[in-house]
Amino acid sequence: MRQEVDGMKSVHEGVLTLHKPHPLVADQRGNIDEMESKLTTEAAVSKCEVIQVAIVCAGHNSSRSMVTLIKSMLFYRKNPLHLHLITDAKAHLILSTLFDTWSIPQMEVSFYLADNVVSEVSWIPNKHYSGVYGLLKLTLPKALPSSLRKVIVLDTDVTFATDIAQLWALFQNMKSDQALGLVENQSDWYLGKLWKNHRPWPALGRGYNTGVILMDLSKLRSMNWPHLWRMIAERDLQTMLSTSLADQDIFNAVLQQNPRMLHEIPCHWNVQLSDNTRSESCYTEVADLKVIHWNSPKKLRVKNKHAEFFRNLHLTFLEYDGNLLRRELFGCSNYSTNKQASSYINHEQINEDDACYEFRCVKYIKYRTHLFYLDYDYEQESSDGSSEWDVTLVAQLSMDRLQMIESLAKHWEGPISLALYMSDTEAQQFLSFVISCETLANRKNIGYHVVYKEGSLYPINFLRNVALGQVTTPYVFLLDIDFLPMLGLYPYLKRVMSNLHMSEGNKALVIPAFESLRYRLNFPKTKADLLKMLDVGDLFTFRYHVWPKGHAASDYPKWRSATTPYKVNWEQDFEPYVVVRRDVPEFDLRFAGFGWNKVSHTMELEAQNYQFIVLPNAFVVHMPHAPSLDIAKYRANPLYKRCLDTLKSEFMSDLSIKYGKTFPVGN
Amino acid sequence: MRQEVDGMKSVHEGVLTLHKPHPLVADQRGNIDEMESKLTTEAAVSKCEVIQVAIVCAGHNSSRSMVTLIKSMLFYRKNPLHLHLITDAKAHLILSTLFDTWSIPQMEVSFYLADNVVSEVSWIPNKHYSGVYGLLKLTLPKALPSSLRKVIVLDTDVTFATDIAQLWALFQNMKSDQALGLVENQSDWYLGKLWKNHRPWPALGRGYNTGVILMDLSKLRSMNWPHLWRMIAERDLQTMLSTSLADQDIFNAVLQQNPRMLHEIPCHWNVQLSDNTRSESCYTEVADLKVIHWNSPKKLRVKNKHAEFFRNLHLTFLEYDGNLLRRELFGCSNYSTNKQASSYINHEQINEDDACYEFRCVKYIKYRTHLFYLDYDYEQESSDGSSEWDVTLVAQLSMDRLQMIESLAKHWEGPISLALYMSDTEAQQFLSFVISCETLANRKNIGYHVVYKEGSLYPINFLRNVALGQVTTPYVFLLDIDFLPMLGLYPYLKRVMSNLHMSEGNKALVIPAFESLRYRLNFPKTKADLLKMLDVGDLFTFRYHVWPKGHAASDYPKWRSATTPYKVNWEQDFEPYVVVRRDVPEFDLRFAGFGWNKVSHTMELEAQNYQFIVLPNAFVVHMPHAPSLDIAKYRANPLYKRCLDTLKSEFMSDLSIKYGKTFPVGN
Repeated sequence: MRQEVDGMKSVHEGVLTLHKPHPLVADQRGNIDEMESKLTTEAAVSKCEVIQVAIVCAGHNSSRSMVTLIKSMLFYRKNPLHLHLITDAKAHLILSTLFDTWSIPQMEVSFYLADNVVSEVSWIPNKHYSGVYGLLKLTLPKALPSSLRKVIVLDTDVTFATDIAQLWALFQNMKSDQALGLVENQSDWYLGKLWKNHRPWPALGRGYNTGVILMDLSKLRSMNWPHLWRMIAERDLQTMLSTSLADQDIFNAVLQQNPRMLHEIPCHWNVQLSDNTRSESCYTEVADLKVIHWNSPKKLRVKNKHAEFFRNLHLTFLEYDGNLLRRELFGCSNYSTNKQASSYINHEQINEDDACYEFRCVKYIKYRTHLFYLDYDYEQESSDGSSEWDVTLVAQLSMDRLQMIESLAKHWEGPISLALYMSDTEAQQFLSFVISCETLANRKNIGYHVVYKEGSLYPINFLRNVALGQVTTPYVFLLDIDFLPMLGLYPYLKRVMSNLHMSEGNKALVIPAFESLRYRLNFPKTKADLLKMLDVGDLFTFRYHVWPKGHAASDYPKWRSATTPYKVNWEQDFEPYVVVRRDVPEFDLRFAGFGWNKVSHTMELEAQNYQFIVLPNAFVVHMPHAPSLDIAKYRANPLYKRCLDTLKSEFMSDLSIKYGKTFPVGN
Repeated sequence: MRQEVDGMKSVHEGVLTLHKPHPLVADQRGNIDEMESKLTTEAAVSKCEVIQVAIVCAGHNSSRSMVTLIKSMLFYRKNPLHLHLITDAKAHLILSTLFDTWSIPQMEVSFYLADNVVSEVSWIPNKHYSGVYGLLKLTLPKALPSSLRKVIVLDTDVTFATDIAQLWALFQNMKSDQALGLVENQSDWYLGKLWKNHRPWPALGRGYNTGVILMDLSKLRSMNWPHLWRMIAERDLQTMLSTSLADQDIFNAVLQQNPRMLHEIPCHWNVQLSDNTRSESCYTEVADLKVIHWNSPKKLRVKNKHAEFFRNLHLTFLEYDGNLLRRELFGCSNYSTNKQASSYINHEQINEDDACYEFRCVKYIKYRTHLFYLDYDYEQESSDGSSEWDVTLVAQLSMDRLQMIESLAKHWEGPISLALYMSDTEAQQFLSFVISCETLANRKNIGYHVVYKEGSLYPINFLRNVALGQVTTPYVFLLDIDFLPMLGLYPYLKRVMSNLHMSEGNKALVIPAFESLRYRLNFPKTKADLLKMLDVGDLFTFRYHVWPKGHAASDYPKWRSATTPYKVNWEQDFEPYVVVRRDVPEFDLRFAGFGWNKVSHTMELEAQNYQFIVLPNAFVVHMPHAPSLDIAKYRANPLYKRCLDTLKSEFMSDLSIKYGKTFPVGN
């Protein structure tokens, strides 16, 4: 939570003055290297011992930052881990989906909803909402299960540069009353002389940083911790009025009153990188850093060689392929919580000798999925009742179509749900792209859902289902990313749906699709424009040259002169772009890569007796791009074609059984 | 070198039988974990102590494999390193360029040409050429400088999973005569009972693996090592006839005679993953692995969970962004060999307040460059004298154009030099792409030069210069990757150059450029075909709609009816695709991304009084693709345009000074 109060801290801590260290602290410090070298030998953690970690996490951005922490922890760990996550609803959705799909062996994750304990700290006067989450660390002895006796508590903005077992081992050095292991604060904040009338909360010497805490829950419980910190906080709040550094102020006030509770940890277990700290004197002295704390996650200038060092360390885990962390720990197999869950693909369901093995696997892969990768905030308009007809555009893409998002956002002002198929590195590039793109940076009604790459086939229908699954409006417009809707399609759809009584029965509104074969297109502003361009050959009906069946059922000749919506019948291989209810059937996962991924879906709509109604004044236009790698693979590989045929007939047969109908055999 | 003799080993070691360990070995082993825990405390390596490492490396594939080793070593290291590389000419070119451009602080690299010592071992009967390089480890005490007293010797196919300082520390445990620190061999090879009449070289018990050696050079020198191993090898060769496992056989024979020289290292310092080894009993016992030895780098099946563990570890460093390893070691600044060289970009040359700072930087960035990333073997035909007119196609690309390589290779059977701008991860994808592509897998006359991504601009001219710099034919054809040459252009050019007396004076043969705006193009087979397609609008002259000036000087109307080469004059903004001598001026590095990168080059040709001669029966056709990100940036960013204008006028002014000519001001 340090991150979210950072704006405030970096202003306050901006001045560096050196003071004589508090005598008590000086006594305790000793020689760090010596202390450390003793610890690594004396305090070994036994093989397969479970290490307990608690993190408070709220909101989209903290969730993203926490993933980097988790990756660094997993990279170096050699022990089973148990994560205890105290989250708000947003972070809970994101992180429970992420860990479920990540399937990391020998890591258990427990969630605790912040709402249940927020009342314990919400009475504390606080400068902004996120501060409440910052304060939640105070409630851990109560919030965590009583069977849990000790836990490492981390801020979301720390990165490990070593095995966390070494930190866990330090618990063994905590004596009698020592219930909180902490690193000294590396700024001068608590010395209280940063500016005139600067009055920080009371602390021992420089105070202690709560980004990394060894918390002995048993000892705290036996000291009646909730009562203890509350008494001291209430007393100090009479003069302080509010906390400045959230939980850290209160922990320091408690320690100042009860120094025996403190166990000091060497500085390199929490190297604090906010502006003007004394952290440099820590990291240049020791041979290795253990934990970096990005108190101030602002962009580091390249010209500072230290900054570059830390930036590289951070990028290492930011860009690290999280799938590689699914490695088993040797000899700790007993700990696997759930054999089934710990495998991200259930191979047993497929016969390995099947020639279509690779294609069949796709259906069973749990792709690691990070929902709402960026800030998302969409409130449906409801005062005028228009939310009743609100519609979200649903699409999926990989990096090579990234630029399309901007154009799409310009053509569709309504909510959008996008699934993005990317590597961890590409996710970072995507992040920079959105931040630097004016059109997108301020749009909060686009939900970006990152699905991490796995295997060689583009899981198009998995992506569609992920994007579809996060829609909150009653209707969805199922489109592909290489299409641009006509300007004004969003309000047009909302109007038309109300007239068509869209909520009654199964209806699919068909938006006719056209195609430009040229790069430079003056996008048609009206239907009249579009018809003119069709006549002179600047536009074509979609896939007119190669796959007319896909859209022929829309009846383009009729559409030319239509002024009112008209019904059409489903035909074989029909794959129109449609507006449907959000609870439409999911896309069939066996179709990945090129071929039949939409055809199969339209067929299921037909099986459910959907009416296909073509809208007379709506259209989308396919924008040119180089052929996708998947099409190239399809063309090159006879096995791909053969397996696709097998999957098709299996799908048809499943559909017949499910709906008791038979369909004509396609090609 | 293990890798290159692997085919042989994995056959021989394919059977697993367990034998009673040799008594001597059993005594020495003891409890590994206990031994290890002693070592980490007793034998600390002091901060900033330089760790010496020697590696023998020959050929393209070993160079690539060695980079993964180096990355893993750098990732965990906290000490300065000095690499001693014994290489053949190919590996020397590749690795010296790589390390020069990598600019890793606190890592020194010394090269030793294998040719100088190969005679010491080439007399040993050996089954294939690479074996000579395998044997070179025997010569290290002589080949390495006498000031070097101890060194860690590694095969190229090992990966570190821990800090190499821990291995270096084991030198302190080597007593009196112990000159070679080795891990026991984890296969049954030396037990000599794998099959009937299996007669391995003599060894102590299971023998020792030479993939990781702690070599005390001083002790070996004082024992007259060259004499020692030679005597034993000569004697054993009388009965053995040749070595099977290269140096490893001879090291084992020497140790069998001189067991006092051996210091055994715990098994996890060389976990040998060839088929059916006893390595599993090592890696499931210990808490952590230190060094993995990929004796058998074949594809590991996903269904084996151990295989997956090791594959992930390997991929971690294969795909790791090497640029991130340019981090400085804190507090070891004294060791920096060369301050200038250790910075991959010399910032001092640019004023940071310059609005065009980002654009000016590009010129000074040393992009990490891995030449000849894949096998390359091109012998110019010379018997018939045709090599006199041989010509290499030069181009550059990033991942989004990868598919173009295949088409290009089909249209151009001659040598090609390609610079590829990629991340480390993309380089792996590129590797798989080439291996799986029939057309490319067997072509050895394509030089692939990987330039690793750095910063946000596509360094188009740096890439062109890299590709140009590795050409060995007298002529080059400077093309862009999105063009396909007419079929038969390669032999046509060689014929035409001989007729045109290409070697006399400065000549640039212009190949007229056309453009298809449609995806599906029936590529014109002849000039007549092409003219027909022009007439019906299926093709256009290149950039006819948006930038006619670039190629107008080729005089398309004249070309239509031309049957013989004709001269044209340079005109402003001319940027034709040309065939020129290899020693043509380099492309100007200040132009990166979109704009003026070729125009400036053509201008310099004009300044050097090149004759521009258009070929009547040659053409190239631009294939459609979505606009590049660089063009999008150019269009979106007014600063980009302004800076490009500044760079243009600076280039013009530099050119005027260099050649004493003035050029009309462009746009």
